[in-house]
Amino acid sequence: MRTDINCDMGESFGSYRIGEDEKVMPCITSANVACGWHAGDPMIMARTLELAARHGVAVGAHPGYPDLLGYGRRNLETFPGEVRNYILYQIGALAAFAGAAGVKLQHVKPHGAMYNLAARDERTAKEVIEAVKAYDPGLILVTLAGSLCAQMAADAGLRVAAEVFPDRAYLTTGQLAPRSMPGAVIHDPEQVKERVLKLVRTGMMTSIDGRDLALRADTLCVHGDNPGACLLAASIREALETSGVRVVAMGAQ
Amino acid sequence: MRTDINCDMGESFGSYRIGEDEKVMPCITSANVACGWHAGDPMIMARTLELAARHGVAVGAHPGYPDLLGYGRRNLETFPGEVRNYILYQIGALAAFAGAAGVKLQHVKPHGAMYNLAARDERTAKEVIEAVKAYDPGLILVTLAGSLCAQMAADAGLRVAAEVFPDRAYLTTGQLAPRSMPGAVIHDPEQVKERVLKLVRTGMMTSIDGRDLALRADTLCVHGDNPGACLLAASIREALETSGVRVVAMGAQ
Amino acid sequence: MRTDINCDMGESFGSYRIGEDEKVMPCITSANVACGWHAGDPMIMARTLELAARHGVAVGAHPGYPDLLGYGRRNLETFPGEVRNYILYQIGALAAFAGAAGVKLQHVKPHGAMYNLAARDERTAKEVIEAVKAYDPGLILVTLAGSLCAQMAADAGLRVAAEVFPDRAYLTTGQLAPRSMPGAVIHDPEQVKERVLKLVRTGMMTSIDGRDLALRADTLCVHGDNPGACLLAASIREALETSGVRVVAMGAQ
Amino acid sequence: MRTDINCDMGESFGSYRIGEDEKVMPCITSANVACGWHAGDPMIMARTLELAARHGVAVGAHPGYPDLLGYGRRNLETFPGEVRNYILYQIGALAAFAGAAGVKLQHVKPHGAMYNLAARDERTAKEVIEAVKAYDPGLILVTLAGSLCAQMAADAGLRVAAEVFPDRAYLTTGQLAPRSMPGAVIHDPEQVKERVLKLVRTGMMTSIDGRDLALRADTLCVHGDNPGACLLAASIREALETSGVRVVAMGAQ
Repeated sequence: MRTDINCDMGESFGSYRIGEDEKVMPCITSANVACGWHAGDPMIMARTLELAARHGVAVGAHPGYPDLLGYGRRNLETFPGEVRNYILYQIGALAAFAGAAGVKLQHVKPHGAMYNLAARDERTAKEVIEAVKAYDPGLILVTLAGSLCAQMAADAGLRVAAEVFPDRAYLTTGQLAPRSMPGAVIHDPEQVKERVLKLVRTGMMTSIDGRDLALRADTLCVHGDNPGACLLAASIREALETSGVRVVAMGAQ
Repeated sequence: MRTDINCDMGESFGSYRIGEDEKVMPCITSANVACGWHAGDPMIMARTLELAARHGVAVGAHPGYPDLLGYGRRNLETFPGEVRNYILYQIGALAAFAGAAGVKLQHVKPHGAMYNLAARDERTAKEVIEAVKAYDPGLILVTLAGSLCAQMAADAGLRVAAEVFPDRAYLTTGQLAPRSMPGAVIHDPEQVKERVLKLVRTGMMTSIDGRDLALRADTLCVHGDNPGACLLAASIREALETSGVRVVAMGAQ
Repeated sequence: MRTDINCDMGESFGSYRIGEDEKVMPCITSANVACGWHAGDPMIMARTLELAARHGVAVGAHPGYPDLLGYGRRNLETFPGEVRNYILYQIGALAAFAGAAGVKLQHVKPHGAMYNLAARDERTAKEVIEAVKAYDPGLILVTLAGSLCAQMAADAGLRVAAEVFPDRAYLTTGQLAPRSMPGAVIHDPEQVKERVLKLVRTGMMTSIDGRDLALRADTLCVHGDNPGACLLAASIREALETSGVRVVAMGAQ
Repeated sequence: MRTDINCDMGESFGSYRIGEDEKVMPCITSANVACGWHAGDPMIMARTLELAARHGVAVGAHPGYPDLLGYGRRNLETFPGEVRNYILYQIGALAAFAGAAGVKLQHVKPHGAMYNLAARDERTAKEVIEAVKAYDPGLILVTLAGSLCAQMAADAGLRVAAEVFPDRAYLTTGQLAPRSMPGAVIHDPEQVKERVLKLVRTGMMTSIDGRDLALRADTLCVHGDNPGACLLAASIREALETSGVRVVAMGAQ
């Protein structure tokens, strides 16, 4: 049994800081690195790639909408081809820093509003998939477990990593419970750990209304923008390894 | 005998248009493509790379300062590492579209204020060279003929293309005559053609005060942002070919 | 009888040019000036305000989404308060140049996607209205004739100018015919002129399916971004004046 | 005897936070509010103006270069008129939020690289002064005590507030000791307090080489971007008031 722990990284910008990348990096196995559009800039990208390389953490591009002001969390209407080209641009930019740091990109994980839209909107999903294939068909696309995008990417012959959010509750349909719903975010680290162990060992997650839900979890997402993030990541990792689960980068042999 | 004709391309942005890329592309052998910072955007980059591929024109990255408002023509103070990382970012972004169009980057030519500063400032030149080497040491760096940057790049083992501006006058020192000097820009197409022919055949350019100046001309820059540009490019090319000069991409065998 | 002719102006940016402001300005009575977000920049704003002042053309703010890349034509999700504050910011910025040119702002007309959304979406309309009232309750809000926003603004005590697009066809419901519908854009200048004359003199517009539609037309919008724009504006104005309609700024006594 | 304590405020952007405005605001008498170019955005500006209004703190515009990436701390070459128009734009934008919060702008203080350049460069100083006069000749211009800009602004009939940095050492010439010089930044809060008391009561500052330097101090600048900032501001204020100095906004009667 194995799984991967990923985290969004490199989301600072200029003089502005978000996240505690130095502390989180040692606890994860895959880093999704912002590419300068919703967050990140060339100096941050260079530093983040060097940090990941030093810790042997696999790296992926984390492209978003051209909306630094909204941190990529707002839907932006796009015309045909724009999502594809926005992603191509950002993968390429990040790959330059990966190369300079002596590593290769492992995956692509769209950010925020683009990730959520790709999970359910066919045209967006199609363009995300096109971008990844056009850049390098060997890249893994990280996408919401059970989503339309996951299905379409697999159909298109891409390597797909199904992503699960350990601190989020799920509906019985397999969708994330909306944040507005009571209990949608799980704050107790012990409960998060238990859910993760059950999920990775049995492939079953307890849904928000108490049923068992089959969910593929190729990679677990932890958040790096709050102080407790690295502690949670570290404790999840320890719990998994203690119970015999290998925690390795999604693309590792 | 051979030379190359290059032109800045893909400098439109969103709904804004600069240049007549469709008309100019057939007349040139190397295209310097803007990378979304001083000009250009992902849609434009995709289209420009496809256009170049269709015409068999070699492509290079044309990175600039993060100053769309100033079109990359204003000096921007940078801190150590910024020029290197700004260029890495932009080369990578453009390379993604080159790959998607089935071509490989041939060269890098910094834009505007960054080009001019790199020609004379050691730290800037050093970072430009570092960026190109870090991305791909096989790329050609296009730089002002006779400049500090040309010398430093050659010393660093990079392939260098010395660039000459056929419609600009030169001082006897080999530097461009400042635009403020009378006669600095040569408007008569016949005179431009004669100068180019003499330069490519003899390696000599007539300086602004009438002396012969030895100047290496691996590539000739034409401008695409005025209506006469493609005519001038076409007529220079015809004159060169008629007199037995091969006009081919700088990186061609 | 009277009406006003308005046009979007100052939509160039840095080295990029859109529109023929110098030619159009003498033909119109109200200028909607871009405020640096979807288009325009401080140099352009200063020049546009001076040009308007010289021609005695009334000026208004033309605020848009923070999306230069999309020219403000793409919907951007916003969180509560953002539309209000985006508009406040842009009105204030433009007002500084109005003051420096010795004129006062007459009106506010949101741009592109923001204009269209405000016309039908209650929350957006409410924030547009709040922004105008917060800045100066004496400003006129230009909005689509017959729209939700026009109604809400009037209810809120704002001065409202109902806007009609002479070269666009209307549905019998009073809504603009979508551009995808055949006949949605009227290209024949003579037909445009006839429609305008009928509209201003009778308050009736012929809808796309041939019925008479009552439409208030406080101001007529002409477009400045194509070569024929100033000709059309001039000929509409002449036709109106010849038939005894005063063409004056919407806020004029 | 009186003086003023000012602090740069509203320098967050989107999801990014800089400064502890809620804690600092009660300790100061004048707030320099970022205007969305080097920092700040419309939501932040609205909140900052409301916060200042609630605390009775006077507000001023804090305009900077269009360089969010560099936080306005890098020199940017400008062409004639650009500094004037950049400042006009930003003053106007901020004034809109001041109006909405029911307060009037008191002053203008350029930010970072623009402030430093205006202090010594004639053309920049001239354009800063032009912008302030064009917007409202009653506004106070905050500028480096003893600088070229302070002199030029006074000659031009502007109200000028000479600014002193209590935690920075000064050369005997009256210029700030460069940060690279040992002792250029004074870290001991007690020493800072002593210097301030001496300065305000005697008009004399001890220079870095121990001499007495006459320095006008209409306003004292404290920094808000480190945790100790509000403590320092509070303790300076208390020390001043205890010794009988009135600490009031620079524009107060």
